[in-house]
Amino acid sequence: MPKGRVESFADGIFAFAATLLILNLVVDQTRPLAPQLLDNWTSYAAYAVSFLTIGIIGANHHTVMHQIGRVDRFFLLVTTLFLMFIAFIPFPTRLLALDIRGPDAEAAALVYGITLTGTALMFNILWRYAASGRRLLRQDADQRVVDGISRSYLLGPIAYGIATLVALKSPLASAAMYVAIAVFYIAESSVFGRSQS
Amino acid sequence: MPKGRVESFADGIFAFAATLLILNLVVDQTRPLAPQLLDNWTSYAAYAVSFLTIGIIGANHHTVMHQIGRVDRFFLLVTTLFLMFIAFIPFPTRLLALDIRGPDAEAAALVYGITLTGTALMFNILWRYAASGRRLLRQDADQRVVDGISRSYLLGPIAYGIATLVALKSPLASAAMYVAIAVFYIAESSVFGRSQS
Amino acid sequence: MPKGRVESFADGIFAFAATLLILNLVVDQTRPLAPQLLDNWTSYAAYAVSFLTIGIIGANHHTVMHQIGRVDRFFLLVTTLFLMFIAFIPFPTRLLALDIRGPDAEAAALVYGITLTGTALMFNILWRYAASGRRLLRQDADQRVVDGISRSYLLGPIAYGIATLVALKSPLASAAMYVAIAVFYIAESSVFGRSQS
Amino acid sequence: MPKGRVESFADGIFAFAATLLILNLVVDQTRPLAPQLLDNWTSYAAYAVSFLTIGIIGANHHTVMHQIGRVDRFFLLVTTLFLMFIAFIPFPTRLLALDIRGPDAEAAALVYGITLTGTALMFNILWRYAASGRRLLRQDADQRVVDGISRSYLLGPIAYGIATLVALKSPLASAAMYVAIAVFYIAESSVFGRSQS
Repeated sequence: MPKGRVESFADGIFAFAATLLILNLVVDQTRPLAPQLLDNWTSYAAYAVSFLTIGIIGANHHTVMHQIGRVDRFFLLVTTLFLMFIAFIPFPTRLLALDIRGPDAEAAALVYGITLTGTALMFNILWRYAASGRRLLRQDADQRVVDGISRSYLLGPIAYGIATLVALKSPLASAAMYVAIAVFYIAESSVFGRSQS
Repeated sequence: MPKGRVESFADGIFAFAATLLILNLVVDQTRPLAPQLLDNWTSYAAYAVSFLTIGIIGANHHTVMHQIGRVDRFFLLVTTLFLMFIAFIPFPTRLLALDIRGPDAEAAALVYGITLTGTALMFNILWRYAASGRRLLRQDADQRVVDGISRSYLLGPIAYGIATLVALKSPLASAAMYVAIAVFYIAESSVFGRSQS
Repeated sequence: MPKGRVESFADGIFAFAATLLILNLVVDQTRPLAPQLLDNWTSYAAYAVSFLTIGIIGANHHTVMHQIGRVDRFFLLVTTLFLMFIAFIPFPTRLLALDIRGPDAEAAALVYGITLTGTALMFNILWRYAASGRRLLRQDADQRVVDGISRSYLLGPIAYGIATLVALKSPLASAAMYVAIAVFYIAESSVFGRSQS
Repeated sequence: MPKGRVESFADGIFAFAATLLILNLVVDQTRPLAPQLLDNWTSYAAYAVSFLTIGIIGANHHTVMHQIGRVDRFFLLVTTLFLMFIAFIPFPTRLLALDIRGPDAEAAALVYGITLTGTALMFNILWRYAASGRRLLRQDADQRVVDGISRSYLLGPIAYGIATLVALKSPLASAAMYVAIAVFYIAESSVFGRSQS
């Protein structure tokens, strides 16, 4: 089972799921365009946050695959489940964009949060299965790097899980947390990542 | 005719057909969101089953290509027909998701079954053409592995064919069988595949 | 300018354009499903013909790229124009599927024919630019193979051009010719291609 | 962080964003087809201009990656932002196609211009970050080629920025400038590029 084809399948899903996000942006041709374009800012924000989130997860998936020397069928199954969550992201993104300012805000924020929490959980399972007892790691994978990844990935499901629960109290606060998590990961990866590469 | 480009074309179709499944999930913006989201469970189930089915077929296609040393134009033609069925899957998936609880359940379950039976048949033809007399196999392909693949792939069209016929009696039972086939393949590949890799 | 990235960009367009064809298949949820599914046969036929046509062109593009040793910016430009026609195919495919039995049959058959004629023309320009004076060919490209490709590709724009003109007299005859051209290419490539590979 | 996976993610976005443009072409099945097809010429023009623009940017991205020897996390982040603009292009393309002849022409031309200016800006940041002090360049990258790229890429944001401002006075002149910029890049790349390759 060559590792390269897992990567190319995953890259395909990352790229397509990110590009499909644009189909969520729609305007009503029977109404004036300019006010709609201004009013659509939640759609642009949701597009940007989900695109960047998929991009960050994709970059982290590269990091993971870089530590991995071989894959087995179970790893492949978990990867498929993980990618199933990635490909799902365009749906709650549209809900969040359209409903965050209306009466359906809570439901939209919940679905978005559950999807991202599930994505982060699958990513942790994928990594921990590979790293536990160095099951699928490369011979020369540095154990400190491996432990660092394990620690830092734990944050994802916790942060998204909290943001999902917050949606029950305040959908807007929940949405703000989704933005903040993406910004945090961007800042962390580009600041720390830069120095260590 | 390099084998690598067949794989990259196939990977594109697998990834793209799986990602397009998300476009089947729609909600009516004029009605409350929460009850729709709960009522949509058949759509999530259909999304998951079809995504996993495409993922499993993709993984099996990797296994097949791993045994193959060269490709010819006829193999390419059968691969294209096979991928034509793969790319078709989003259409019956939407029908099954939307109609399994209504008066159109039989038609929807039939179309889903015919598509998956056709997919499994094309995959068998593709493999048997390559393996018969070791026509396109690698020099060092293990004959026991080859025979094992031939035996195990025979199950696909039979199982999907039976599930399709069941749709004439009970669409719900048919749909349950589509789920069961996917679960069986997942269990088989991850349990047996893990020990042998 | 590495030849490999031209191939991966082209493979992406081939795979996506073929997969997007499925979005042309739609049913009206407010009417019974079974009669619609039977009535939709022109949509399945159009899906199959366009999918196979894109597959054949993709396989031929592989053959061309196999003869080519290097690419330049002009070749890249013609390739982009060629791929622009490929990515356009889903649009006339939908028109042909929906309108071939109605009053708009002539317009639909014309647009389909013009698109395919344009695609075949661009493919010829692409190949002739590369092959003329062996401009971009590999050192070891066999001149007889090169001349064979040049002869056989000339058929494409002529056949599609005639079928397009036929649409002015009989859209149905024109549509039958589009099917026949695809079948001819499939037969030719799998029968002759098999023996020579 | 292997450069190859950045390229494959980028190639996926380029190919997919270009192919999704075709979904902007729609006809109303309740009205006669032929007059709509003729009236749709702005849609074909917009499709062609955006497809070619994405193709040119893709080719230029190849040129850039060819000079680059390694990538870091910050470069990856800027690439993701750059690809976020690329994947956004289908949306303003649809607006421009549908509204350039109506009362919403100014808004449509503005959004198209802002998107392309942003794309060109991100591309410049991406390149300048890599090239400044030869931070990420290959050891053997020719400094004259590097300086040539730096000079020629400066044109993009300036040209698109001016065309965007022109939209405030004349949306039609602005749209003509978008066409002219694409034609200029095509002419430049195929004429000059041919001799130097």
